[in-house]
Amino acid sequence: MALILYELAAADPAVRFSPHCWKTRMALAHKQLRAECRPWRFTDREAIAFSGQGKVPVLVDDGQAVHDSWRIAQHLEARYPDRPPLFLEKAPMPLANFVNAWADRALLPAIARIILLDIHACLDPVDQAYFRTSREQAFGKPLEAVVADQAAHLRALKQALAPLRQILQARAFVDGDAPAYADYCVFGMFMWARCVSATPLLEPEDPIHAWRERLLDAHDGLARSAPTAAG
Amino acid sequence: MALILYELAAADPAVRFSPHCWKTRMALAHKQLRAECRPWRFTDREAIAFSGQGKVPVLVDDGQAVHDSWRIAQHLEARYPDRPPLFLEKAPMPLANFVNAWADRALLPAIARIILLDIHACLDPVDQAYFRTSREQAFGKPLEAVVADQAAHLRALKQALAPLRQILQARAFVDGDAPAYADYCVFGMFMWARCVSATPLLEPEDPIHAWRERLLDAHDGLARSAPTAAG
Repeated sequence: MALILYELAAADPAVRFSPHCWKTRMALAHKQLRAECRPWRFTDREAIAFSGQGKVPVLVDDGQAVHDSWRIAQHLEARYPDRPPLFLEKAPMPLANFVNAWADRALLPAIARIILLDIHACLDPVDQAYFRTSREQAFGKPLEAVVADQAAHLRALKQALAPLRQILQARAFVDGDAPAYADYCVFGMFMWARCVSATPLLEPEDPIHAWRERLLDAHDGLARSAPTAAG
Repeated sequence: MALILYELAAADPAVRFSPHCWKTRMALAHKQLRAECRPWRFTDREAIAFSGQGKVPVLVDDGQAVHDSWRIAQHLEARYPDRPPLFLEKAPMPLANFVNAWADRALLPAIARIILLDIHACLDPVDQAYFRTSREQAFGKPLEAVVADQAAHLRALKQALAPLRQILQARAFVDGDAPAYADYCVFGMFMWARCVSATPLLEPEDPIHAWRERLLDAHDGLARSAPTAAG
């Protein structure tokens, strides 16, 4: 089997910071699969045109292109059933899908308001204009204005994390005693921040902090050893 | 088997509005179990002192008292394994627990800011002083000030519901093609509002609206036919 993963890269191509690509990278490690991870830039539409769309992650598995991190996870689970399971539920994994939707719709915007300018700073110059234009359009104001009130955004993030905090007071991982894909969906958001920003998002006494430490160590420290733009 | 459920009641004892009691009421219906539902008031600590704590729901199942809606659901699942399953995951149902935590920590406070004064209005006079004091302490301001900016609270609720909306764009229920306990955890919040308030929380074109209609009709319209203080 030959696996190729296209991942969003910063100016330094070793820095791979996309939260969705991190979901996929952790899922591959969980399945004990090795992929050739290729750097990709926002503006490089041609390189993944074969997938029929313009966003990463894109996984190519023995010539078959799969895009969208959720669909990639389902593909891996179906194609490699003898490897450790990513889902403890049966298909279509509705509750893991809810956790993923929560990560994307509640957590991602809350973290974005803290790290948007850090992302911009680490991008390759060819991506910076695209990133600024598209994000300023989405937020309706300059990046500098979005991130201006960092203290308020950190308080809002702490509040948004309340459901996760409650869960992790009672057990080690979102999906129980061991991590599974629901954990990676949430962890991807924290890796995104870790790769580009030096701002601490969690207080050391927060149970979410200990959970993040456990996942940084998982799969032989794959995530902890990943290059970051923050240095 | 003899089942007794203690439920929070309004001044009109037929109005049972607690979101957590609604989780349990729907869970009992799902399990095709009939309970004697007894009205209980916030200040009536003695009536449930036998449970070793002071909050409802309390279920008494053949003399055994179980409190806390999550623990009641787990009790029902373990004790009545031949009835329709509340959980499609295996114990300890970690992802359904996440959905429950999200409903309690993200949705409940967002709805509370809209309906707090409506709750106060429908309570029995013996409960009103307790309710006002405890909630004003929790929110740090008068009830009237909490609910003052309703338009902003409705916008915040719409935003908080984004993960649920994404899920329900792709399928009929949170837990897949049919409702299960994760659905009831979220639905309980909407029943709470329905029982006490005339304020519309959802726009008719929102996929969450259609999901709520489906659950109002579930179990022979159990929830739709429940008495409300709003009339």
